[in-house]
Amino acid sequence: KVFEIAVIPGDGIGPEVVAEAVKVLNFVTNGGDKEVNLTTYKLGAEHWLETGETLPEETLESLKKHDAILFGAVGAAPGDTRIPSGLIEREMLLKLRFALDHYVNLRPSKLYPGIESPLANPGNIDFIVVREGTEGPYVGNGGSVRTGTPHEIATEVSVNTAYGVERVVRDAFARASQRERKHVTLVHKHNVLVHAGHLWRRTVEAVAADFPEVTHDYLHVDAATIFLTTDPARFDVIVTDNLFGDILTDQAGAITGGIGLSASGNINMSRTYPSMFEPVHGSAPDIAGQQKADPTAAILSVALMLDHLGLSEESKAVERAVEKEITSRQELTDHRTTSEIGDAIVALLA
Amino acid sequence: KVFEIAVIPGDGIGPEVVAEAVKVLNFVTNGGDKEVNLTTYKLGAEHWLETGETLPEETLESLKKHDAILFGAVGAAPGDTRIPSGLIEREMLLKLRFALDHYVNLRPSKLYPGIESPLANPGNIDFIVVREGTEGPYVGNGGSVRTGTPHEIATEVSVNTAYGVERVVRDAFARASQRERKHVTLVHKHNVLVHAGHLWRRTVEAVAADFPEVTHDYLHVDAATIFLTTDPARFDVIVTDNLFGDILTDQAGAITGGIGLSASGNINMSRTYPSMFEPVHGSAPDIAGQQKADPTAAILSVALMLDHLGLSEESKAVERAVEKEITSRQELTDHRTTSEIGDAIVALLA
Ligand SMILES: CC(C)[C@H](C(=O)O)[C@@H](O)C(=O)O
Ligand SMILES: CC(C)[C@H](C(=O)O)[C@@H](O)C(=O)O
Repeated sequence: KVFEIAVIPGDGIGPEVVAEAVKVLNFVTNGGDKEVNLTTYKLGAEHWLETGETLPEETLESLKKHDAILFGAVGAAPGDTRIPSGLIEREMLLKLRFALDHYVNLRPSKLYPGIESPLANPGNIDFIVVREGTEGPYVGNGGSVRTGTPHEIATEVSVNTAYGVERVVRDAFARASQRERKHVTLVHKHNVLVHAGHLWRRTVEAVAADFPEVTHDYLHVDAATIFLTTDPARFDVIVTDNLFGDILTDQAGAITGGIGLSASGNINMSRTYPSMFEPVHGSAPDIAGQQKADPTAAILSVALMLDHLGLSEESKAVERAVEKEITSRQELTDHRTTSEIGDAIVALLA
Repeated sequence: KVFEIAVIPGDGIGPEVVAEAVKVLNFVTNGGDKEVNLTTYKLGAEHWLETGETLPEETLESLKKHDAILFGAVGAAPGDTRIPSGLIEREMLLKLRFALDHYVNLRPSKLYPGIESPLANPGNIDFIVVREGTEGPYVGNGGSVRTGTPHEIATEVSVNTAYGVERVVRDAFARASQRERKHVTLVHKHNVLVHAGHLWRRTVEAVAADFPEVTHDYLHVDAATIFLTTDPARFDVIVTDNLFGDILTDQAGAITGGIGLSASGNINMSRTYPSMFEPVHGSAPDIAGQQKADPTAAILSVALMLDHLGLSEESKAVERAVEKEITSRQELTDHRTTSEIGDAIVALLA
């Protein structure tokens, strides 16, 4: 089988880390009865500056024909006033997540042996966040009146549907049922956000009935940030809305040694459109082009992609190689370049 | 001057910690030309179970006549299904914050010497969060249609006004100008919540012009949770909306040794209604009535109250005594009771 993979390197450190991810992807799919065919797409802040395009309709249509998308990072340097703030994020990254119906935003958090956590007693951190990706406060349903006057009113509307909540909650329970601890924690703020919160709670109760082997509990989002600080090892699968998931996964990245290691999948589980795999980190323009970025998050995103494509052996091999590479870092005194880390992981795969 | 103080002990550990706070309040206002006159109000989950009342109109009117309110904690035991979830929080606690126009929700975070942080290298944590208290996603402006069916849609609307944002941002800058580092960080998510986010950003730029001595920067809320983990000492004054403030202040409590030490003020700076001072922690029904709760957060809330009432000497004295008491804990081997901690602080004040 030939897998058609779209590659969007993007801005800043995106191209560097994607180059290493591609190295690994090519290596593990080389030989046997499978093959990958890569097509690179130029998109992002740089591309917008050159062409004024964020995500043209033809590009979106063309992306839809692929089996999966590997995404680097997008975003201009902070303070670059030529690009309207948030434009690329909304018109390109979020547009892809919405247009390709990436309703499962999967973000695993694991503290690898040898990685120092900023927590004094991190314990054995190994959980996944299943963040809803197509609803909530991210729908762009807001506006303002009397803008710029002392009488301005600005609103943001969080939209939640039974359809949207049910499918992501079901995904979370299905993933939990495959894990050792088989436990789901719903994170919301239902004591304040009553309507959305109750929809989420009722849905969790209903779906839980179909997964008798999976236990579940509930935490308010504020309490969740406390437990991510004092006892992150308690979590197995967290399911939550788009905005809470955004917040919690950055905190989760921080406690497991930085988002330089955090992978993510924007997954369309019904496979109507290709899923997209991206490191959680941004484009980090300050270190771009200097071979200073850690490609591990991008490489772990390839592991998530391989798993989604049904290549679970290859996925596990990449994860094991990454884990070994990370553990071996303790003995290293020199800082390695981006491509040295990629090469080390390929060597471990060989 | 006689200060009329309303006391709402509430549920769970509320009465125990408030008893110690009152001890301290009485001690520091005893003598001289001032006096406090306390009136206790029975409100909360227990009261609702007995009477069906959350916050009767007469009680609210009566509370308005006081100079300040000291609040313990409210909330039923989790799993007590007799009380509709979130009812007391919304109909009583949030109703007070909104009805009394508590637009500045002030939450200081300080890592006291001798307190162990869950962070490996916490550094010198000493910042305040100025959380907006009367707008944002907390306005209760949501709803659902086709509720309970597969076609349900549930919304939550965040409402932000120039009036509401300007007054709290101005308060944050005013507080920053009185501090050593004189720095304000706006936390929002303007790349996604465009309309509300831009109102906040524009307001910060406008207000900053009136405070040339105060510097300011901006962080997305997800990035803020990272810095609260990796470098919390960087923060001086954080200004943010109601929901982000809720989340960040629980995380801030966790990194400074637990919300057992976190005080807060729900402040009406225009003094049209009394302000309310409360520990950030909840009613902790599991340890209620056992003299296990730490009254420090409640006592530090008294310090915030004294400062708001213009008794800044007394406020500083309470803070100093608390700091001394906390530092002395290192040498203690026995766990002290709630009232022993209160007594120790009074002894240090004497
Ligand atoms: C860049 C931004 C729009 C995005 C988000 O908020 O989802 C990012 O923070 C993430 O978590 O992938
Ligand atoms: C109890 C709840 C409504 C409240 C809030 O969300 O504001 C609490 O979490 C707080 O931070 O004071």
